[in-house]
Amino acid sequence: MRQALPLPISISLDTIQSLLPKIDVFETISKGFIAYSKGEAVIPPVGELLFEQPPGEVHIKYGYIKTAPYYVIKVASGFYNNPSIGLPSSQGLNLLFDKTNGQLVAILLDEGHLTDVRTAVAGAISSRALAPSQVHSLGIIGAGTQALLQWKYHRRILDFSEVLLWNRHPEKAQQLAETLRQQGAKTKVVEHLEDLARQCQLIVTTTPSSTPLLEKNWIQPGTHITAIGADMPHKMELDPQLVASAELVVVDSRSQTRRQGEWSQALRAGLVKDRSPLELGEILANPQLGRQNDQQLTIADLTGVAVQDLMISQAIFENIK
Amino acid sequence: MRQALPLPISISLDTIQSLLPKIDVFETISKGFIAYSKGEAVIPPVGELLFEQPPGEVHIKYGYIKTAPYYVIKVASGFYNNPSIGLPSSQGLNLLFDKTNGQLVAILLDEGHLTDVRTAVAGAISSRALAPSQVHSLGIIGAGTQALLQWKYHRRILDFSEVLLWNRHPEKAQQLAETLRQQGAKTKVVEHLEDLARQCQLIVTTTPSSTPLLEKNWIQPGTHITAIGADMPHKMELDPQLVASAELVVVDSRSQTRRQGEWSQALRAGLVKDRSPLELGEILANPQLGRQNDQQLTIADLTGVAVQDLMISQAIFENIK
Repeated sequence: MRQALPLPISISLDTIQSLLPKIDVFETISKGFIAYSKGEAVIPPVGELLFEQPPGEVHIKYGYIKTAPYYVIKVASGFYNNPSIGLPSSQGLNLLFDKTNGQLVAILLDEGHLTDVRTAVAGAISSRALAPSQVHSLGIIGAGTQALLQWKYHRRILDFSEVLLWNRHPEKAQQLAETLRQQGAKTKVVEHLEDLARQCQLIVTTTPSSTPLLEKNWIQPGTHITAIGADMPHKMELDPQLVASAELVVVDSRSQTRRQGEWSQALRAGLVKDRSPLELGEILANPQLGRQNDQQLTIADLTGVAVQDLMISQAIFENIK
Repeated sequence: MRQALPLPISISLDTIQSLLPKIDVFETISKGFIAYSKGEAVIPPVGELLFEQPPGEVHIKYGYIKTAPYYVIKVASGFYNNPSIGLPSSQGLNLLFDKTNGQLVAILLDEGHLTDVRTAVAGAISSRALAPSQVHSLGIIGAGTQALLQWKYHRRILDFSEVLLWNRHPEKAQQLAETLRQQGAKTKVVEHLEDLARQCQLIVTTTPSSTPLLEKNWIQPGTHITAIGADMPHKMELDPQLVASAELVVVDSRSQTRRQGEWSQALRAGLVKDRSPLELGEILANPQLGRQNDQQLTIADLTGVAVQDLMISQAIFENIK
């Protein structure tokens, strides 16, 4: 029989939440995207597992940065009936392993929270990099955990005067609006998504939709859209014509967005055959590749990359060990 | 902030080792293969992560049986330089999740041991199902953890009089022979692999080789070979001509062995285009599909299926909760 090794550190959600304020998440995640786009990361295709009764989906993201000491495996699931039984829809954990010998060093029992945070941070970073110079109204589509977190992280690094909210179920948008108002935000719920689209200079989409929500002819010149919902091949929030009409499309991962994300939908529709999107890490490393003026329509298409999971898990672990 | 949920149960390697004797691993794993071959399991393609300095590989296997309460994610790695720094080459863990809501219920910190055991059990089950009626000499190729475990699990369910061992490094085969002798086995180390191949009615191959070891013209009629080493596309232990010449080839997973395993090598060599292997679960459910007489050459090609990880993890968890 082989001998048991020392147990890895287990880090609870409480501890993770207490450590997050000590981390510059924007800097941490930005560094990860830059390393990824420089080819310094090894990130295989995302693993997916689907469930029917009740409906659920699991994403397994994994990989490493060649110069970093760890490899990560991140499990994040969405079981969308969970709220009806009093559980959050997001679940999951992050595992950090020593990449020189395979030993498990840390189990981050984040229950999906680190995935939620790193997704919101990536959204805010993308918006900061690509938004027009003046954003009066931020529009958020969806009213779930991501809608709230995108607002929280956007307001930490971007200026805007008001938030417009739209959700398929208006009462949920009202609830979110109330939460935002309690935290000092000027907030309006709009009945028709078109109104939000026409009024906002910056729009963040956060739904699991599999049909387009935002139409091309609603969007004003100069708008930036950060789309974070389409993390599987069947999902989409933007009209593919809208994607094709953007002057600049920035994706988190060119390889992932050939298969999933808004870009993949435009590709499948044959609308962007001759184009190639830029990567977020390229824009972050070289800001002059980004928006050129306040008339351009820009889109950030985020599918979630394991390098984000690695960077945030590593930062938590290094703050505790 | 969301509320932290109760922590999942962590099960140490010590506890796992103390629970294993209480489980009928042969029955448990057999049931898993039968369910898998009946189409009752959802098992996506295996995830792989490779490392160069030092060399290492990680396999991520995941899935569920539709009628079972859990889904599993299994991480198993091989870092082959580990023994030189005093660590076992195998590392890893098994995670069990509630498949109705995604909650993590158990972390089995098995450090690769459950993968080693379920692999050995699958080998022994395959050999029991397909070996000729009389096995005088069992041949084992390789001298690592799997070589020892295959012997241990084979002798629990099969009769044989002696064990012949061969390894690329003869001194390691001698060490293994000494270990087996201390446990009462009659054991010989052979210098030339051909001698083992000609003398054994049952041969188990356990190496990470990426070139063929066993040649077609060494193998006697009536031999059964259980090949467990080729778990990645570049690996192989059998001459593809040997695979093509077998009267019966049984694989653990037809879908996985199109891409990896001995069958995939014979496929790529264009030698088995018009044939389809049987699955182990089919043979276990319907034994008359197996060996027809003592003259047939039979091969079991095992790549490792997540249903094995699910069944053994679930059995451990149900013995502890």
